[in-house]
Amino acid sequence: MNMKINHLVESQQLDEETIFALFRKADELRVADQSNHRGKILATLFYEPSTRTRLSFESAMLKLGGSVVSTENAREFSSAAKGESLQDSIRVVSSYADIIVLRHYEEGAAKIAASVSSVPVINGGDGTGQHPTQALLDLYTIWKEIGRLEDITIVMVGDLKNGRTVRSLCYLLGKFEKIKIIFISPGQLSVRDDIKDYLNKHNIRFEEQTDLNKYLPLADIVYMTRIQKERMPDAEFQNLKNSYKITEENLHLLKDSSRLLHPLPHVEEIDLPVETEQTNDKVAYFRQAENGLYIRMALLSYLLE
Amino acid sequence: MNMKINHLVESQQLDEETIFALFRKADELRVADQSNHRGKILATLFYEPSTRTRLSFESAMLKLGGSVVSTENAREFSSAAKGESLQDSIRVVSSYADIIVLRHYEEGAAKIAASVSSVPVINGGDGTGQHPTQALLDLYTIWKEIGRLEDITIVMVGDLKNGRTVRSLCYLLGKFEKIKIIFISPGQLSVRDDIKDYLNKHNIRFEEQTDLNKYLPLADIVYMTRIQKERMPDAEFQNLKNSYKITEENLHLLKDSSRLLHPLPHVEEIDLPVETEQTNDKVAYFRQAENGLYIRMALLSYLLE
Amino acid sequence: MNMKINHLVESQQLDEETIFALFRKADELRVADQSNHRGKILATLFYEPSTRTRLSFESAMLKLGGSVVSTENAREFSSAAKGESLQDSIRVVSSYADIIVLRHYEEGAAKIAASVSSVPVINGGDGTGQHPTQALLDLYTIWKEIGRLEDITIVMVGDLKNGRTVRSLCYLLGKFEKIKIIFISPGQLSVRDDIKDYLNKHNIRFEEQTDLNKYLPLADIVYMTRIQKERMPDAEFQNLKNSYKITEENLHLLKDSSRLLHPLPHVEEIDLPVETEQTNDKVAYFRQAENGLYIRMALLSYLLE
Repeated sequence: MNMKINHLVESQQLDEETIFALFRKADELRVADQSNHRGKILATLFYEPSTRTRLSFESAMLKLGGSVVSTENAREFSSAAKGESLQDSIRVVSSYADIIVLRHYEEGAAKIAASVSSVPVINGGDGTGQHPTQALLDLYTIWKEIGRLEDITIVMVGDLKNGRTVRSLCYLLGKFEKIKIIFISPGQLSVRDDIKDYLNKHNIRFEEQTDLNKYLPLADIVYMTRIQKERMPDAEFQNLKNSYKITEENLHLLKDSSRLLHPLPHVEEIDLPVETEQTNDKVAYFRQAENGLYIRMALLSYLLE
Repeated sequence: MNMKINHLVESQQLDEETIFALFRKADELRVADQSNHRGKILATLFYEPSTRTRLSFESAMLKLGGSVVSTENAREFSSAAKGESLQDSIRVVSSYADIIVLRHYEEGAAKIAASVSSVPVINGGDGTGQHPTQALLDLYTIWKEIGRLEDITIVMVGDLKNGRTVRSLCYLLGKFEKIKIIFISPGQLSVRDDIKDYLNKHNIRFEEQTDLNKYLPLADIVYMTRIQKERMPDAEFQNLKNSYKITEENLHLLKDSSRLLHPLPHVEEIDLPVETEQTNDKVAYFRQAENGLYIRMALLSYLLE
Repeated sequence: MNMKINHLVESQQLDEETIFALFRKADELRVADQSNHRGKILATLFYEPSTRTRLSFESAMLKLGGSVVSTENAREFSSAAKGESLQDSIRVVSSYADIIVLRHYEEGAAKIAASVSSVPVINGGDGTGQHPTQALLDLYTIWKEIGRLEDITIVMVGDLKNGRTVRSLCYLLGKFEKIKIIFISPGQLSVRDDIKDYLNKHNIRFEEQTDLNKYLPLADIVYMTRIQKERMPDAEFQNLKNSYKITEENLHLLKDSSRLLHPLPHVEEIDLPVETEQTNDKVAYFRQAENGLYIRMALLSYLLE
């Protein structure tokens, strides 16, 4: 790997070579357990609960032969409760763990943590900021499902303004060739300018649309996200929700080779019968969640070495 | 074992042969640590806290050489907090754990989880439903303390209507011969009809009584449970509590070979001096709690193989 | 070691020989990982959250090759929630763990736990009582930083009345020769009579002062503690806080060989730039926190053997 990274704070840090090295490592770890990190300790330091992300990282570390210390209550930790700075908490934890996964409610927290930590820090999501391992597992899933990371049309659907996963994924996609993104969202939830500027700068073609069914047949990947009803008046939400939804009726508009992704949890924006979820190859989001385990194993292994 | 079970959802699933196979395995594990499950991960997914049950399962898995990922906050997990279905949560967790213990606040949750999980699910208590490993450890304790599982008189005392442990234990007892059960409870807390029907169908003799001291001399096992004061007016509770209680005064009514069991925690329904608890062989409930560790090791080992 | 201890409840239990045996063991563990406690289980039973203490003990146990079961919610445990006694909870947990660290909100809880536990109990802080492993790591830090435990002048600053760490450390210092303690606190937060009586009885010289800067040049060790604003009217706190504070301005008053300690977390009573914290050898409190890991490893190892 040409770019030695010590911490993973944001998607932009990852170059193409490192990305593929991680993908190959994840593929290896999938078939052969490699418990070569015995004696190493991961601290999952969560200032807000995110059981899914936490359990995925912890399982990854255990499968590598390492151990885990954990808190979901870091906000009630000395730090928040008694006024200690995040820097001091990280300094102390980094003196008895070998690697830290930080989840924080404030954007920028991971960068601050990385600046003082004596061990690698992985950003497990910081406020409205990034969630780079989610982006990495999304990209890994596209690569495994479609077989390539260039010449791909991706339809991204839902709340593209606030969705952290969409932002981090766009940063990663900017590193590849002949990508086309079709953003589909209600106007008030459209993707922000900073992302558009980034995509323009990296020659990624994109367009903004509102008619989901029209663009489904063009997609190699449909990346669904949740529209949170808390973000708008209820009447408006009821009105919108059926327009940004995958059901039995429009799933068949996808090509056979296309794949439906979702960072999970999904609620009503995906409304498919259990049987379809279990048997239709187009439904890829549970495989996507499982991929998270292997890509996190690869990342932990890479940063520990 | 003749009946291969993949999940343990309810006591009725266990046949006599499997039960004794588990007992023999538990006895083996008690004397010789067998760390043959290295690399396997248990997920304890608790939608309501039950520290005792959780720590017992986790210790069991660790003693088998495996590892544990855990949440006591599954209710604040994506699922409940964001509207994800239990099915989806189980699908995701079963992609990175090798076995799941589920504790849930709703009856039937374990069955739903088992129907979609790709790994074994153990019911660690679901609402007013079952708690089959508690029943299994109760039965294992009777077997170890009395030396047999037939031709036994069991006096069950307390809240027999709402007590989940009494229900699950009755289902297991239905599999053995010449059992006699004497239920002793206030009328409003008597055992429900579904249990009586089950016992009748399996030719288990039972009677319902109210005078505890009269039946203590007949018991091989006295199975005490707590009457929860929240379930009735305070005056009524104060009136009842002294009638369904074991103290120094009536403990001696038990035969020397008889044993006092309790699923714990106990409060005032058992009012014995510490010295009696530590030295009187009739007091078996701390040995019973310890048996939980070994029977859970046996069960985890059985389901992982 | 001449005095075999089974539990560590209070600092006074530790004699000089045991203390130095633990220090030597901690030094060994620092350089060579010794995973000789594989298969042993630590239960961290916390009736109030203290993430720092908990993670430090858990990392220590994992580094020894052991495993951990844990609860931060022991107060919602059967015990508190359902009325079970602490004794019963300890009896049950000690049947499936090999050693227990107890954190409790009530003074005396550790002694009660130790009286019924079948495995070693370590006091991880009980209410306004003791926190003996903090005292041990403080003493270990003094020994490592200064090179001796006699003929030392220690300036203790801040809330000396309520500070649990100051109390436990004084008990340990009473075992050594030619110690001089200078207590510096506002009158209403001065050290209590029981500590003064203990120091007098053990021939430890001490004096009570209020002018911090005057005594800094005399100190080998400055042991800072936090003045909690909750304990006094805000106007009084604003008035006091600047008098019991270390800054760039008075840090230089310390001899080069002197060391600044703090049990952490620190807030405004230490107001030093990050660069000073990282480069000035006098700042010892992050090394002190790290020492906690090794001394806890030594203690766990000692009690498990």
